[in-house]
Amino acid sequence: MTTRADGQLADGRAIAYYDGHPGRGPLAPDRRTDIAPLQPASEIRWDPLQHDYAVIARHRQERTYHPPVELCPLCPSTDALLTEVPEPDYEVVVFENRFPSLSLRSVDYVTPLLDPPFRSAPAAGRCEVVSFTSDHRGSFAELSPERARIVVDAWADRTAEMSREPSIEYVFCFENRGEEIGVTLGHPHGQIYGYPFVPPRFFRMAETLARTHERTGSCLQCELVAAEVADGRRVVDVAEGWVAYVPFAARWPYEVRLVPTRHVGSLGDLTESERDALAGIYLRVLRAFDGLFELPAPYIAGWQQAPVRLLRESWHLAAEIFTIRRAPDKLKYLAGSESAAAVWINDIVPETSAARLRHALATLSV
Amino acid sequence: MTTRADGQLADGRAIAYYDGHPGRGPLAPDRRTDIAPLQPASEIRWDPLQHDYAVIARHRQERTYHPPVELCPLCPSTDALLTEVPEPDYEVVVFENRFPSLSLRSVDYVTPLLDPPFRSAPAAGRCEVVSFTSDHRGSFAELSPERARIVVDAWADRTAEMSREPSIEYVFCFENRGEEIGVTLGHPHGQIYGYPFVPPRFFRMAETLARTHERTGSCLQCELVAAEVADGRRVVDVAEGWVAYVPFAARWPYEVRLVPTRHVGSLGDLTESERDALAGIYLRVLRAFDGLFELPAPYIAGWQQAPVRLLRESWHLAAEIFTIRRAPDKLKYLAGSESAAAVWINDIVPETSAARLRHALATLSV
Repeated sequence: MTTRADGQLADGRAIAYYDGHPGRGPLAPDRRTDIAPLQPASEIRWDPLQHDYAVIARHRQERTYHPPVELCPLCPSTDALLTEVPEPDYEVVVFENRFPSLSLRSVDYVTPLLDPPFRSAPAAGRCEVVSFTSDHRGSFAELSPERARIVVDAWADRTAEMSREPSIEYVFCFENRGEEIGVTLGHPHGQIYGYPFVPPRFFRMAETLARTHERTGSCLQCELVAAEVADGRRVVDVAEGWVAYVPFAARWPYEVRLVPTRHVGSLGDLTESERDALAGIYLRVLRAFDGLFELPAPYIAGWQQAPVRLLRESWHLAAEIFTIRRAPDKLKYLAGSESAAAVWINDIVPETSAARLRHALATLSV
Repeated sequence: MTTRADGQLADGRAIAYYDGHPGRGPLAPDRRTDIAPLQPASEIRWDPLQHDYAVIARHRQERTYHPPVELCPLCPSTDALLTEVPEPDYEVVVFENRFPSLSLRSVDYVTPLLDPPFRSAPAAGRCEVVSFTSDHRGSFAELSPERARIVVDAWADRTAEMSREPSIEYVFCFENRGEEIGVTLGHPHGQIYGYPFVPPRFFRMAETLARTHERTGSCLQCELVAAEVADGRRVVDVAEGWVAYVPFAARWPYEVRLVPTRHVGSLGDLTESERDALAGIYLRVLRAFDGLFELPAPYIAGWQQAPVRLLRESWHLAAEIFTIRRAPDKLKYLAGSESAAAVWINDIVPETSAARLRHALATLSV
């Protein structure tokens, strides 16, 4: 049973500790006196040609960049170093990002512009950091299933919490892992973005799911899971209530979609036993990625949850996990075709990729 | 006046030399005897959830990867080394890629699959390499305006040529520059992809342009150029018939849209004097990018031309040029928000970015 204890940092940001058992006493105060108040001047700007927003976050250019281990802001505070986490130890902790791409506070620092074709607004969302463990040298894949389960509960709880904010339309829980994809803090952590709009990739998926449901009465995600299980060639792992498979049209060298077999929209809709099973299969998939080349995989893992309000009904929850490593010494770069035309070229056949991930899994289990 | 001379490589691939003056005699034959025939097993696979194709190009995993200078396949052939270019010298040369992501030949190596939800087809397109100069150590930005003009003519000619192919729906001329974005050949070169579908990013733009035209009778791109010129803050450079500006909702740290002020759809529609002016302003913009940090900019530059058939009428030509370098020692990485949610976070305000590019330009002109 995961419990939560709420605190506040010196500059007013919220912090929440998630523990596997009750008993965390009164919270240690944030003793930092030199921490400047947040002035997040984030804005969203409308691109009429691409029918899309871009987020302009001018204050982020100076964000913390590869600090040395002994100055890690995600490690628990000690007498020698006051970090972002005042407590001397923790299991999982979530706090507002000090360099947020999106912030409700941006309404104080950004004036909306409505001068067509130029339209912008404060990026009135929220960015949180989720530290998966107090162990700086760890990784998500090395968590115990019990600890991973706390992260799952924290994701679900943060999603519910952020969804109550009227300006937030989508809650995206994700992890960027590895310097190769630009991670600037080595401590194992993820992020939660509460966007003030439904991100275009998810909006298009929501439209597709809604359209299919309207036309056929069924769920496309349910159909895809069933078809993948029947085919079998791209299935990587199964657990009670979960299937992990490489999509038929995978865009990344190694990419897994992890889907609950029950039609649920969000992490908060999962039962206790589904969450336990998720913790197990999620860890196995991450370990398979690390096992591919016997190297820590640079990966992005993100939860595709139902939008907060729009096109919510027909959504089916999934996680997407992919690495940009295509060979021990080669990365997949997004160049002209991907970045400028949005056409992904994948050099590895999904069936091969799935076989290699299964092999990595089998090797793990020995 | 640009002339073209057509040849063929030992494995049957086409090669075309573009010169600024007539007079190239009979073409040197490709004397390589050890070059294996192309067996491009590229396929496009349909992703019903994202309503999108992915290209699976299994034969590309083994493509040429950072060869040493003395083995560069884009340098002219010598007695000591037979390269992809049989001639002893050239100005601009275009040939079919030996490791194509898309190829008309793929119909011989890929069986279409129509077993819903699994649908795939041969990636029946075409990939060409454009070598901008025989000088291995050069770069596009260092070309003379006369040489740059030959490249413009080559782009226009290849576009016309590829557009005649019934299975090609979009011709994309682009350059990836710099190891930082994954370029594996140091020789200055670009690429042309003939896609068997309209790439999603351009399809959405085509829809927007068509919808606007239908509703208002006017062109959104024309409106945007006029609004940017009137505002002025994001304009980087102007030339006769051309405006280069940083879009109001720029997604990249430094990003320029280069647009003809006359409403034309494709490179082939440009007049002689528009092409000359383009060569000049394009070179200045590239040099401004290199001047930003006094370092060769890792950039992607691509031409947004009208689709070959679909939604063609309302299109307005533009080039998009952006770098992933956000500071002398920092790159912009595409992580969770960009790669998984398609929401770009840009740390640099477009007005600031434009001012810095103007400053770099002014410094150049001294």
